[in-house]
Amino acid sequence: MKKSEIVLGIDIGGTNTAFGLVDRSGKIWTKDSIPTRPQEGAEALFERIFTNLNSMKSRQIDFEAVKGIGIGAPNGNFFSGKIEDPPNLGWDYINAVELVKKYSARPVKVTNDANAAALGELRFGAAKNMKNFIEITLGTGLGGGIVINGEILYGHFGNAGELGHINVIPGGRLCNCGRKGCLETYVSAEGLKRTVYELLAESTHASELRNVSFRELEAHRIYDIALQGDVLAKQAFEFTGRILGRALADLTAVFAPQAIVLFGGMAQAGSLLMDYVQKYFDEYSLPIFKNKVRLLLSALPSGDAAILGAAALIWHELNHY
Amino acid sequence: MKKSEIVLGIDIGGTNTAFGLVDRSGKIWTKDSIPTRPQEGAEALFERIFTNLNSMKSRQIDFEAVKGIGIGAPNGNFFSGKIEDPPNLGWDYINAVELVKKYSARPVKVTNDANAAALGELRFGAAKNMKNFIEITLGTGLGGGIVINGEILYGHFGNAGELGHINVIPGGRLCNCGRKGCLETYVSAEGLKRTVYELLAESTHASELRNVSFRELEAHRIYDIALQGDVLAKQAFEFTGRILGRALADLTAVFAPQAIVLFGGMAQAGSLLMDYVQKYFDEYSLPIFKNKVRLLLSALPSGDAAILGAAALIWHELNHY
Repeated sequence: MKKSEIVLGIDIGGTNTAFGLVDRSGKIWTKDSIPTRPQEGAEALFERIFTNLNSMKSRQIDFEAVKGIGIGAPNGNFFSGKIEDPPNLGWDYINAVELVKKYSARPVKVTNDANAAALGELRFGAAKNMKNFIEITLGTGLGGGIVINGEILYGHFGNAGELGHINVIPGGRLCNCGRKGCLETYVSAEGLKRTVYELLAESTHASELRNVSFRELEAHRIYDIALQGDVLAKQAFEFTGRILGRALADLTAVFAPQAIVLFGGMAQAGSLLMDYVQKYFDEYSLPIFKNKVRLLLSALPSGDAAILGAAALIWHELNHY
Repeated sequence: MKKSEIVLGIDIGGTNTAFGLVDRSGKIWTKDSIPTRPQEGAEALFERIFTNLNSMKSRQIDFEAVKGIGIGAPNGNFFSGKIEDPPNLGWDYINAVELVKKYSARPVKVTNDANAAALGELRFGAAKNMKNFIEITLGTGLGGGIVINGEILYGHFGNAGELGHINVIPGGRLCNCGRKGCLETYVSAEGLKRTVYELLAESTHASELRNVSFRELEAHRIYDIALQGDVLAKQAFEFTGRILGRALADLTAVFAPQAIVLFGGMAQAGSLLMDYVQKYFDEYSLPIFKNKVRLLLSALPSGDAAILGAAALIWHELNHY
């Protein structure tokens, strides 16, 4: 491996933390994943990450060559370098940049996972060579990474792009943020589940979904059942696709992007979801934008996307130096 | 007047077209307003503008000193230089930059009126020294000009910022764009009227507004009647403020701006509208943005705002050369 041609990407998730050494081309030279164990605190997590990395030295990685460190984390703030009151982690305000200094003198940058995914998409994925696009991450919740003129939109406070919390149905479903009707209460793995239960209540369709408790139900099961032709499961995807299609039409009116890229577990539901998203996106788009803006699926490898995103964050910064 | 220290700003409206010569400080050295007469076509309009300007020569303006020309117009596209299928003008696609070349060899830039207002606000108004803010223009409709890192957000197609057409009530009021529930069907002079008529139908309140036909009713009359204590008129302002406050909270989640500036006739309703906008903006804001983002009224002089905006557009460009 050439010296000075590698960065460290770290993705901190609620359950697991993945990290790896990534070169300019997006090749991952080594990687690992460890439990986050948020209750032990952020300091302990970084201690375990770097201990683990040091043990990799035997694999002939030249750590002197690591040019910088990118961190993707829930509520990661690019300006402050902090992870700010992250949901699911139970931390308060963690200065990740400071914590990493103990282990490395290289530049460190922090952002949220959706911005990291957008930068990964820009450098290694479906948005190569694009200047203006929106990355939508579909997981337990919904996140947004917005790229304008080749740069992430951070806003004045470093935390722009909270697309999961735009209102789509006034007075609608209660959100974890304390407000009602947020996009992610409808469009996310959790949102899809809630839609299924709404449909179970509203309709009288026979459905295999009537046999599953709320706690047991997982998004991929709704997907499997829909593929088997279950009408109610398919309706749940259609409703989800309609809400998302309309929201993307609104975002198009605001940003006039060349593309919108969908990333994450639900995007992998493929045509079952995407056909509806495209249909309603076309239907709800302003006439001036019709047939102009491409809806794409992420081209990042799903297993490594988070590491690639975090790595892309720091590659992007290093290129500015 | 110093040579090379003046630009020409032109604002094309549905009824009147205003233009003036403006220096770097925002001082207007001379100005005029003529009827747009859209049915005579764009070429005839520019002919009349420049004929009029030539007649000003007697007023000792040095036209050699005009460094550039900025044009604000409905659906003005910064990238193409065209006025694209403008509502209320009945034109198709007008290449304004080409048309002006007949009269001047100086740089010409075109954008829509909301972006021009935002640039005017940035240079001469309430957003001086700001890097990230949103300008909302409230008139017959609602427009948006979004400033990110000191630059207008144009998007990939040159026409981003169509904030009047984000969906605020699914399946709501029919909009001129052909879709339903757009923000400007609720928040605009026309939207306020529609709200009054909805309230007249829904409630049984006595109200002076019951004496006015839809055609006759104007926004400033609703304002006057509300000031006299009319409950229904005040409810109309509260409803408008609530829809706008919620939309601004959504835009804050997306852009994390330092301020949002309200511009135009309705913004001048002052505390009657603004108190509600602020109240609901606070209520609907994500916790991470609460008490951080300022809501401001435009500080551009209302009579000259459009000329100043168009002038700011070209000053902004000239500074890039």
